[in-house]
Amino acid sequence: MTDPSNPLVPLRVGIPKGSLQDSTVDLFNRAGYHLRVSERSYFPTIDDPQMQMIMFRAQEMSRYVEDGVIDVGITGYDWIIENDSDVQEVCELTYSKATLAPTRWVLAVPEESTIHGAKDLAGGIIATELVNTVRKFFQSRGVPVKKVEFSWGATEVKARLFNAIVDITETGSSLRANNLRIVDTILVSTTRLIANHKAWSDPAKRRKIEDLALLLRGAIAAREKVGLKMNVPKDHLGQILALLPAEKSPTVNPLADPAWVAVEVIVEERVERELVPRLSRAGATGIISYALSKVIA
Amino acid sequence: MTDPSNPLVPLRVGIPKGSLQDSTVDLFNRAGYHLRVSERSYFPTIDDPQMQMIMFRAQEMSRYVEDGVIDVGITGYDWIIENDSDVQEVCELTYSKATLAPTRWVLAVPEESTIHGAKDLAGGIIATELVNTVRKFFQSRGVPVKKVEFSWGATEVKARLFNAIVDITETGSSLRANNLRIVDTILVSTTRLIANHKAWSDPAKRRKIEDLALLLRGAIAAREKVGLKMNVPKDHLGQILALLPAEKSPTVNPLADPAWVAVEVIVEERVERELVPRLSRAGATGIISYALSKVIA
Amino acid sequence: MTDPSNPLVPLRVGIPKGSLQDSTVDLFNRAGYHLRVSERSYFPTIDDPQMQMIMFRAQEMSRYVEDGVIDVGITGYDWIIENDSDVQEVCELTYSKATLAPTRWVLAVPEESTIHGAKDLAGGIIATELVNTVRKFFQSRGVPVKKVEFSWGATEVKARLFNAIVDITETGSSLRANNLRIVDTILVSTTRLIANHKAWSDPAKRRKIEDLALLLRGAIAAREKVGLKMNVPKDHLGQILALLPAEKSPTVNPLADPAWVAVEVIVEERVERELVPRLSRAGATGIISYALSKVIA
Amino acid sequence: MTDPSNPLVPLRVGIPKGSLQDSTVDLFNRAGYHLRVSERSYFPTIDDPQMQMIMFRAQEMSRYVEDGVIDVGITGYDWIIENDSDVQEVCELTYSKATLAPTRWVLAVPEESTIHGAKDLAGGIIATELVNTVRKFFQSRGVPVKKVEFSWGATEVKARLFNAIVDITETGSSLRANNLRIVDTILVSTTRLIANHKAWSDPAKRRKIEDLALLLRGAIAAREKVGLKMNVPKDHLGQILALLPAEKSPTVNPLADPAWVAVEVIVEERVERELVPRLSRAGATGIISYALSKVIA
Amino acid sequence: MTDPSNPLVPLRVGIPKGSLQDSTVDLFNRAGYHLRVSERSYFPTIDDPQMQMIMFRAQEMSRYVEDGVIDVGITGYDWIIENDSDVQEVCELTYSKATLAPTRWVLAVPEESTIHGAKDLAGGIIATELVNTVRKFFQSRGVPVKKVEFSWGATEVKARLFNAIVDITETGSSLRANNLRIVDTILVSTTRLIANHKAWSDPAKRRKIEDLALLLRGAIAAREKVGLKMNVPKDHLGQILALLPAEKSPTVNPLADPAWVAVEVIVEERVERELVPRLSRAGATGIISYALSKVIA
Amino acid sequence: MTDPSNPLVPLRVGIPKGSLQDSTVDLFNRAGYHLRVSERSYFPTIDDPQMQMIMFRAQEMSRYVEDGVIDVGITGYDWIIENDSDVQEVCELTYSKATLAPTRWVLAVPEESTIHGAKDLAGGIIATELVNTVRKFFQSRGVPVKKVEFSWGATEVKARLFNAIVDITETGSSLRANNLRIVDTILVSTTRLIANHKAWSDPAKRRKIEDLALLLRGAIAAREKVGLKMNVPKDHLGQILALLPAEKSPTVNPLADPAWVAVEVIVEERVERELVPRLSRAGATGIISYALSKVIA
Repeated sequence: MTDPSNPLVPLRVGIPKGSLQDSTVDLFNRAGYHLRVSERSYFPTIDDPQMQMIMFRAQEMSRYVEDGVIDVGITGYDWIIENDSDVQEVCELTYSKATLAPTRWVLAVPEESTIHGAKDLAGGIIATELVNTVRKFFQSRGVPVKKVEFSWGATEVKARLFNAIVDITETGSSLRANNLRIVDTILVSTTRLIANHKAWSDPAKRRKIEDLALLLRGAIAAREKVGLKMNVPKDHLGQILALLPAEKSPTVNPLADPAWVAVEVIVEERVERELVPRLSRAGATGIISYALSKVIA
Repeated sequence: MTDPSNPLVPLRVGIPKGSLQDSTVDLFNRAGYHLRVSERSYFPTIDDPQMQMIMFRAQEMSRYVEDGVIDVGITGYDWIIENDSDVQEVCELTYSKATLAPTRWVLAVPEESTIHGAKDLAGGIIATELVNTVRKFFQSRGVPVKKVEFSWGATEVKARLFNAIVDITETGSSLRANNLRIVDTILVSTTRLIANHKAWSDPAKRRKIEDLALLLRGAIAAREKVGLKMNVPKDHLGQILALLPAEKSPTVNPLADPAWVAVEVIVEERVERELVPRLSRAGATGIISYALSKVIA
Repeated sequence: MTDPSNPLVPLRVGIPKGSLQDSTVDLFNRAGYHLRVSERSYFPTIDDPQMQMIMFRAQEMSRYVEDGVIDVGITGYDWIIENDSDVQEVCELTYSKATLAPTRWVLAVPEESTIHGAKDLAGGIIATELVNTVRKFFQSRGVPVKKVEFSWGATEVKARLFNAIVDITETGSSLRANNLRIVDTILVSTTRLIANHKAWSDPAKRRKIEDLALLLRGAIAAREKVGLKMNVPKDHLGQILALLPAEKSPTVNPLADPAWVAVEVIVEERVERELVPRLSRAGATGIISYALSKVIA
Repeated sequence: MTDPSNPLVPLRVGIPKGSLQDSTVDLFNRAGYHLRVSERSYFPTIDDPQMQMIMFRAQEMSRYVEDGVIDVGITGYDWIIENDSDVQEVCELTYSKATLAPTRWVLAVPEESTIHGAKDLAGGIIATELVNTVRKFFQSRGVPVKKVEFSWGATEVKARLFNAIVDITETGSSLRANNLRIVDTILVSTTRLIANHKAWSDPAKRRKIEDLALLLRGAIAAREKVGLKMNVPKDHLGQILALLPAEKSPTVNPLADPAWVAVEVIVEERVERELVPRLSRAGATGIISYALSKVIA
Repeated sequence: MTDPSNPLVPLRVGIPKGSLQDSTVDLFNRAGYHLRVSERSYFPTIDDPQMQMIMFRAQEMSRYVEDGVIDVGITGYDWIIENDSDVQEVCELTYSKATLAPTRWVLAVPEESTIHGAKDLAGGIIATELVNTVRKFFQSRGVPVKKVEFSWGATEVKARLFNAIVDITETGSSLRANNLRIVDTILVSTTRLIANHKAWSDPAKRRKIEDLALLLRGAIAAREKVGLKMNVPKDHLGQILALLPAEKSPTVNPLADPAWVAVEVIVEERVERELVPRLSRAGATGIISYALSKVIA
Repeated sequence: MTDPSNPLVPLRVGIPKGSLQDSTVDLFNRAGYHLRVSERSYFPTIDDPQMQMIMFRAQEMSRYVEDGVIDVGITGYDWIIENDSDVQEVCELTYSKATLAPTRWVLAVPEESTIHGAKDLAGGIIATELVNTVRKFFQSRGVPVKKVEFSWGATEVKARLFNAIVDITETGSSLRANNLRIVDTILVSTTRLIANHKAWSDPAKRRKIEDLALLLRGAIAAREKVGLKMNVPKDHLGQILALLPAEKSPTVNPLADPAWVAVEVIVEERVERELVPRLSRAGATGIISYALSKVIA
């Protein structure tokens, strides 16, 4: 096993296999790395000789970060808690459609059940993938359940076999499709970049980890912004500038035609679709927007 | 059923299921919306609370716009005509490879057939998906056909079972592969954005529809343009500018090196591949082009 | 057969079918062409009436360029050599992940073999797809092998059936998976654009070929660069400029806020991930990077 | 067009494209034909020179049988009725899992709707694929609906857009998944073999059609029976025979060991799983069952 | 929850989701049931009203049988042991290629490791899916390991991250592909039919379970036997019979031609390929073999 | 390399990779072997310890049989000839739809070509995969062609690039789809089992090869026959027997009902569909047919 205290040793980075895999690879590539996953290997290649990539399931990631098998890893807050792992959280990473909204672990029962809250489950059996967290939840509520049964996937179909389930939900559509009713929320979770304590206290490794975090967050932020350019008649400039977000001053450049100027600015992608029609009505022409691949505030 | 006269009610937007589906989703996303289609649902999600998306077949879209089931829809001119729908056309949308060229509905017969025009089909049977339009076509030509038989797909293989077919063609390759000969054109069609009359006469809905049209067309136009930047020696500037399209004046900015200037301009993507070699030969260096995600004239 | 000396005749361009196909189509599209491959046709369509596209296997390309069946083609140096084709090399094209690193044809034996070099193969049988090249290799080394047997794919599994193989390798992973050991390198190869001699000596065709080469290489170079913009406090400008690559002077533009300037520059994509954290630490804010679609030096 | 009265002309047979396609091909093959469907052709090949196969959608089949474009076809009773086709029904064919149970076309509304029967739909709009049948249904009930709107698939998602739908259901699961409630049954349908009247009145064609029907039904029946053999001690023979179905006498053959006999019989497949344990308990040994490929009563 | 003591209540049967799923469905169908799995449902349908099917992972099956959520289930001996479940074993079921040979859970290390047995792992970390079983194994050997770490799949790639792994193997090929070396066997496992104790003590349920076991084992046995018939010249009969297995007397029937007899027998499928050439050389003609779908000894 | 003269050494058997692969595996399994191909391996497993399986392309098979790398192989006659391999032909194997009809290598030209026979190709270039055979063909005809160019697949699209092609055809459909015309036949080919001369002269190996051939041909013949049983009223027996093929006498057994007998016979599968309706009309009832898995004449 390699020595994590040696600054020349590559940073071992765990990325999640499964539902987040494709968007994680995409994130690293947008952040400036060439990360390639070959179908049968658990060791993606990357063009940075100071990094070594490994794929694990999100469920086991934090345990291996704690063990020091890897220096940093990307996983969900839920599994850090479930594994009760002693790790350093570096930052939150909301980088894919799937992770933009936090996921919730909810206590659910059949629509027709007489159970309306955690307290009604005294003596009951609850099926879940998150056994430890659910046990602690009922202990903290002082509700003595009979058993928290570990479920290997498809937990939602077990709500009618046991007394209740605790399952993950984003939009609630899978619960609705199974005619289940949410009676409580157990845990809210987002994606995190976490580090092993020993690696984090090594200055060279920490610098490397911080740079990685900066680039990953820059790539995430780029998705939320667009570059905007337009030609503006000089006598409409004040009106146009008033429409633009005030955060940072836009660049204003002369055009060959002295009656016009070119205005350039970075705006939130989510306001663009309301801003552009207004700019057009206010006299801006030749409005173009272009995508960004990295934005560092 | 929701009341379409209420300005707070979301705009119900129908998008075509089938061959145009992927490019429509792509178009909305480039226009600034986050539109997500889940595999088994007919109700895509969108991040604009003022819009509600539904997927229908292009063939039925205009009838539901007319009925008021949806406020606006994207469909082909052919099916608006076939359904004889009373709807408001908002604009043309030529947004995908498949829709760049208009599609044609043509009257076709086997290569070896003795039929050479519509008039030779008196007493014959014609198979087509566009029954009403074909009936009207023969009536307008005064040709009494025996029957216009509705065909559920694969119309081209029926040309040898009946006397002729009327089928859609883009490049003619499917007709050639079946050894068919075109003897007339029945209808030429492109994709349209259409609106329900009542929705169109509601000012709030109309504003929303017009903004949507502006953004969709901006995303379409962006595909046809590129941003071009280059470094130009000051003494070649006139020659370089003469090569650029005259429509709108380019931006010219100083560089740190006073003998050079930076020139920036938006050009048609289709002239770029001839323009770039010429600019290079005329002395421009560091020529870069970049993609645009929206262009509003 | 069309006359290759006629300047009005389209340029016939061969592109490789198989592993390079998708990245070749992508390259042409980024270079400004609309190239479309339909699944069952060997004749992709392109929106340039002066070009006609055909797909061949990389293995046969150079023979057809030599025969004049096509004017130019994209293939590997290895197959030009194997076919001993008399063609004009126009330029190297390193345009896909797969072609960034040169491929190597290596002589390999089972790990447990007693063979440690070409000389140990006197009297042996070697299986390979590159029969002529391997024969010449052993002749040049003066090693009299018994037979060089042509292998139709899956050459690596034949290393234990014959005495050795000569197979292509990029990363060596397939060899390792078969427990093979490399004992020599036969040929190193990259992708090339090649032309028929007669076409190359025709001025109109040559101009067309050179423009094509310029655009293809511009699209390749664009992948290796990014555009970078940032806002810099005027009093940090010198420090920031010192961090930027010195090749070409960046543009420096005033911002509305007189204490700040906007700096814009094109940098190598591979230095971006080290440069950006440094610029951030040096005081640059609002750092954005954006992708380029063409770069002509 | 070929002359259907000529006995030497092959029988033109239409088979349904779509959900029944694979089981239809399987049925013909079990009936003794070698029927091959190639992916892109609508004309399957068959090893009987007196038959010619064509694939159509079940929806259009009966119209083409009536037109004489084909002599016989396999389609659903529902589409014969919807098309109001004047054809000869030859026999019912319940040959696939999907066709074992009849399909039902039902009138359905949202669970929460106040509609509880056809009569509540006066003035309403009903979406369905079976427009003519539904119109007649409401006429026969004397309920004046506003419109029966043709729906191109995915009818179940339209129940909340219109007032009701009429859709096909086998198990009701798709209706349940959309939270719909059945309020009436419009039509019950099974698969049929139908013939053109002119072909049916031609003796040679009719003989060919009847033989085809015999073989197809023989292959269907074979699925519902199994061959059963067992060794029985002579002194248990009466008891064993009493357990067997009485329809037809079983064969009883001597074995080399004179104390035993071999009993062989054909039984219904659905009773086999209850019969076999009983036979075992009654003393039969060496019980084997084997599949049949054709059973003609 | 339904009352398991009620004989009218259907038998709840758990079948394994995952690698055994297809062969389990096939087994039930060959046993005489019509079992249908729909892609998105965990509740397969079966044509026996006295049975209700549920799919679970093999890993959780025995726990739910013990809990009484299901009456019987099919799972591996390994997971019964790992879960320490108190259930009734009904019979072994070796019904698929994958289950013909028992699977082994082995302790494996990298080829180059210095570990050669369990005892060398004192203080080490072992990754496995079978945590409890592995812990007990090391306890029983008196080897104090540091940690038995739960691994979510892909355990074989973790052998170089931890000190050793315990993983499942059939042929050893996955271990070889990862250059691992087996140093001990932890557990040997086959597939089992297990029952809940309460269900097993209910006479009606037990009868149903025993009949199910009889039919499943009959379908399994059928795969291992074939029916063999041949025509034998009367004067070769003794010689032919001598070649046949002696277990049970074959049937010998007269043929129309009095010099010949028909011989029929059931033989082991694995001896057939050696027996048939011998029978042919001994004078048997018209030798045919046919498949069996059930064999009850 | 193993010694082929040692009778204890397994027989090395080459089976064709590619279009014949699935039907070859199926053939071996029907012949009584358990042959399993894993997706990434070229060494299928078989349950006969005296056999070792390897997969090669049909094109290279005969060369490796000649070299002694394998003892026997399955390949086409065309590639034995093209490779000019000195091997022992064991038997013909027409075991799949694809091999029932012989394949033909034909000389083809565009429909519109002025070439009408081999003699018109003097001075021309012909593209083909079968270079040696085509060269010999033109030599034998005394036609001096300029070049026979090796084509890597998709030969049919090259007919308009060169003067003619020689390509494989089964039904001619690919040629028709490319509008090509056949002007001559070069070679007719079927599938063969071939053996290395040394292996064939080894008595133990030859016995093993002959048994293999017997079983493979038995499995092939089984596809062409069916078992037929029926109940016949004694007074119709003569009439029924007269309808049956005369080759071999059927078995006639008494039934419990003395007025009836059971008749059993093996018939050609291709006559079954005409025979069964006749038997039914002649009074046979309870006609069943069943599939055979092996037939040795």
